[in-house]
Amino acid sequence: MVAVSAGGIRRAAIIAVGSEMLTPLRTDTNSLIVTEELNALGVDVVFKCVAGDDKVELSHLLRHALSRVDLVVMTGGLGPTDDDITRDVAAAVLGRPLRERTEITDAIRQRFAARGVEMPAINRRQAMVPDGADVLQNAHGTAPGLWLDVDRKAVLLLPGPPREMQPILIRVVEKKLAARAAGHTLYRRVVKMTGRTESHTDEALQPLYAQWARAAVPVEATILAALGQIELHVSARAEDRRAVERTLDVAVDQVEDLLGRDVYSTDGKSLEEVVGAMLAQRRLRVAVAESCTGGLITSRLTDVSGSSRYVDRSAVCYSNDAKVEMLGVPESLIAEKGAVSEEVALAMAQGVRERSGVDIGIGVTGIAGPQGGTSLKPVGTVAMAVVTPDATSTRTLLFMGERQIVKYQASQAALDLLRRMLAGV
Amino acid sequence: MVAVSAGGIRRAAIIAVGSEMLTPLRTDTNSLIVTEELNALGVDVVFKCVAGDDKVELSHLLRHALSRVDLVVMTGGLGPTDDDITRDVAAAVLGRPLRERTEITDAIRQRFAARGVEMPAINRRQAMVPDGADVLQNAHGTAPGLWLDVDRKAVLLLPGPPREMQPILIRVVEKKLAARAAGHTLYRRVVKMTGRTESHTDEALQPLYAQWARAAVPVEATILAALGQIELHVSARAEDRRAVERTLDVAVDQVEDLLGRDVYSTDGKSLEEVVGAMLAQRRLRVAVAESCTGGLITSRLTDVSGSSRYVDRSAVCYSNDAKVEMLGVPESLIAEKGAVSEEVALAMAQGVRERSGVDIGIGVTGIAGPQGGTSLKPVGTVAMAVVTPDATSTRTLLFMGERQIVKYQASQAALDLLRRMLAGV
Repeated sequence: MVAVSAGGIRRAAIIAVGSEMLTPLRTDTNSLIVTEELNALGVDVVFKCVAGDDKVELSHLLRHALSRVDLVVMTGGLGPTDDDITRDVAAAVLGRPLRERTEITDAIRQRFAARGVEMPAINRRQAMVPDGADVLQNAHGTAPGLWLDVDRKAVLLLPGPPREMQPILIRVVEKKLAARAAGHTLYRRVVKMTGRTESHTDEALQPLYAQWARAAVPVEATILAALGQIELHVSARAEDRRAVERTLDVAVDQVEDLLGRDVYSTDGKSLEEVVGAMLAQRRLRVAVAESCTGGLITSRLTDVSGSSRYVDRSAVCYSNDAKVEMLGVPESLIAEKGAVSEEVALAMAQGVRERSGVDIGIGVTGIAGPQGGTSLKPVGTVAMAVVTPDATSTRTLLFMGERQIVKYQASQAALDLLRRMLAGV
Repeated sequence: MVAVSAGGIRRAAIIAVGSEMLTPLRTDTNSLIVTEELNALGVDVVFKCVAGDDKVELSHLLRHALSRVDLVVMTGGLGPTDDDITRDVAAAVLGRPLRERTEITDAIRQRFAARGVEMPAINRRQAMVPDGADVLQNAHGTAPGLWLDVDRKAVLLLPGPPREMQPILIRVVEKKLAARAAGHTLYRRVVKMTGRTESHTDEALQPLYAQWARAAVPVEATILAALGQIELHVSARAEDRRAVERTLDVAVDQVEDLLGRDVYSTDGKSLEEVVGAMLAQRRLRVAVAESCTGGLITSRLTDVSGSSRYVDRSAVCYSNDAKVEMLGVPESLIAEKGAVSEEVALAMAQGVRERSGVDIGIGVTGIAGPQGGTSLKPVGTVAMAVVTPDATSTRTLLFMGERQIVKYQASQAALDLLRRMLAGV
C-alpha cells in the first residue's frame, strides 16, 4: 500500500512547525515556495501539515509522513529556544543522536561578533546536529539547514524565516535534489482573463479539455475564480522539457483563440502590469480621477516599477466640492445627474485629462457602501469613464460585497476598460 | 501515548481537501475560521493538513488524525464530481456504507428548480451519506455538511466554499460542539504597535512575561512582526469567562502602561480605523498629497466605512509638474532641495491643505524603487509632513524592500505620524 518510488524521490510531504501557525491569525506560506521548487523537479507534494511546538504530535506526524513519501521537508523550529523542537524530534524519530558540530558554533559566534555581540549560550543548541546530517549553511541567520538521508528516503530541515529558508532551499534543490528526483518536471502556465464567469469559462473550454486529455502529453486544467478575474491553470509533465513547453504553448494559444479579448495575460502578469506595458510602449500618459475607489486605481498603477513614465497624477475627489474644484465638474451636472452617474464619471475623466495635459483620463465614481445606497443606485453601483485621444467609453456596473471588495472590483473594471480600449477590442 | 480526553472534545485536527491547495498558487484559509470557532470553545487545534483529491492519501491522513485527536474537521471535497472524495473516504475509513438520503436529493432538486434548471444527475452524489451521519443543512449551496459520531470521537465534514462552510460551522458549534467540548475557552487579545522592533518589544516586556507566567490565570504572549508594525498576542484560558476577561484586561493595560504611545490598538482595529475614529470624533477633515505612495494612503483611509466624513480629497502627484500645478509647490524649491525632501513634503502638505480648505494636510514624497536611488537618497528614502491646525511635523525615513513594501511602510509611517500628532504624543 505504501507508495514509494524505487530509487528516486518522487513524492514529498511538507511539515511547517510553529504554534503561531495553528492560531486563527497566521498561516504557513513557506510551503508554497517549497512546493514550487519541488514541482519544478517533478516531485509531487502529496500532503502538507502545520504542527505546533509539541514534540509528541510532531513525532507522530513525521513518522506518518515518512511512511507515505520519499522526502519530508520541515520548515521552522530550528531557533535557539526551548520551543524550537524540530532538531530534537528529527533526531529522536530517525534514531540519530544529536552532537555539537563546532564549525557551526564557530560560525554562529562569528555572526554575533560581526555585530560586536557575544554569542548567547542558548545559541549552541543550533549547533546540535543529528548524526550523519549534511549541514546546509545559512547566510542570513544562525540556524543552518540540515539534510538527512534515511535509507532511500530523506528529511530536509529548513529555518522558518522565508529569507533564510529560500536561499538554502534553492541550493539544496540544485546540489542534492536535482540528481535524486525521479519524477517528470511539472510545468504550469496561468492564463488570466476578465469579463466571464467561472462556469461560462468552463463551458467554453469543454472541447479543449477533451482534446487535451487525449493528447500525447496530456494537459491538465483548473479554473480558479479570483476577485475581478478568472484564472485558468494549465499544466503538463514529461521527461522532455521542450515537448512540455511546446504542448503548453499550443494549449495557451488555443485558449487565447477561443476566449479572445477576455484573456489579458498568459505569463503571470497582473492587469496593472499589462496596462502599464501598453501605455509605456505607446508612450501614452495617464491621469486618474477617483471617487469611490479612493486612490486604489492609482496605487495599483504605481505598484508597477517604471510607472512614473506613464502615470502623471491623480485626483481623489471624495467630496463633491473636490470634484468641482480639482476637475471642473459642473455643479449643475452633479445636481442633475447625481454624483454617481456616467455623465459625472465622464466629466471627471475629461477634467483630469485636460488639467494635466496627458493623453488618457480615467474617471470613477460610485457607492462603495455600506451606507449611501438608494433603490435606484444600490451599494456597489459604480460609474466609470475612460477618455483616450481617439475614443470615449463609459460603463455602469454593480458589484457585490463589502466596501474593500467593491473598491477592488471597480479598480479592476476601470483598468480592464482601459486595456480593452488600448487593444482596440 | 495517544492523548485523548475522557468524555469530551478537547483536541482537534483540521484536514482541508483539494488538490488546488497543494499547488504553489493557492492556500487553505478555511482552517483559520475553523480554528477560531474551536478555540472559542476551548478545543485546541493540534495539527492541520492539506490533502489532495487522492483517496489513498486522504484515508491515511484521516486514520492518523483519528488516532491523535477527539474531533477531525474536514473541509472541501463534498461537490458532485468524481474528484470530490471526502464523503467516500470518510465512509470507508469509518466503515459506514453510503446511502442516498432522499430529503437531500429533494432539497438539491429544489435549489435547481428555483433557478428554473433541472438537477444534473451527478448532483445525486451529494445526497449519499455515511450511515448514521447527522445532516447539516447548507443554505448557500448543494452540499450539506455531515457530522459523524465515532465512539467517543467525531468527524465533521464541511463544504469548501467559505460562505457555505461558515454558517454550517457556526450552527454546529452552537448546537453540537458547545455541549461536547471539554476544554476551557481560550481568549485572545491583539495589541498592535508601531515604533519598536520585535526584539526591543520583547526586551521591554520581559518583566510582564515573568509575572504573567506565575499568575492564577496564566497569560501566554507571542510577538509577531508584521509590515510596519508589531503585534503582541496575549491569551489565557479558564473555566470562568469573566476571570479570563479580567486577567486579559489587566494584561493589556500593563502593556499599554509599559509601551505607552507606541500602542495604537488593543481591539483588533487597523491603523487607518484608529486614525479615522480620531478624525471623526474631533470633526477634523484631511487631504493628502501623495507622490511615492501613489494613492495608497488615501486608499487605506477610504477602506474604512464612513470615511467620507473626514476624507476630503487627495492629489497623487507623480510628476514634478503635478506637484507644482496641483499643490503650488514652488519649482525653485524642488530644484533646490530635490523632489524627495522634507521641504517639498511640507510644501505638498501645506498646498493640499490650503487648496482644499480642510484641517489637516499630509504630504509624502520618496523613492519607491527599484530605480531612482542615489548615494545620498537611496531607494526607500521617504520624506513626509503632516500639518494640523496646531502643529507641523516632518520626518525622513529609510525603508527596505521591494517597491510595494516601501509604499506600504511609507503609508503606515505617515498615518502613524498623524496618529501621534492627534494624540498629542
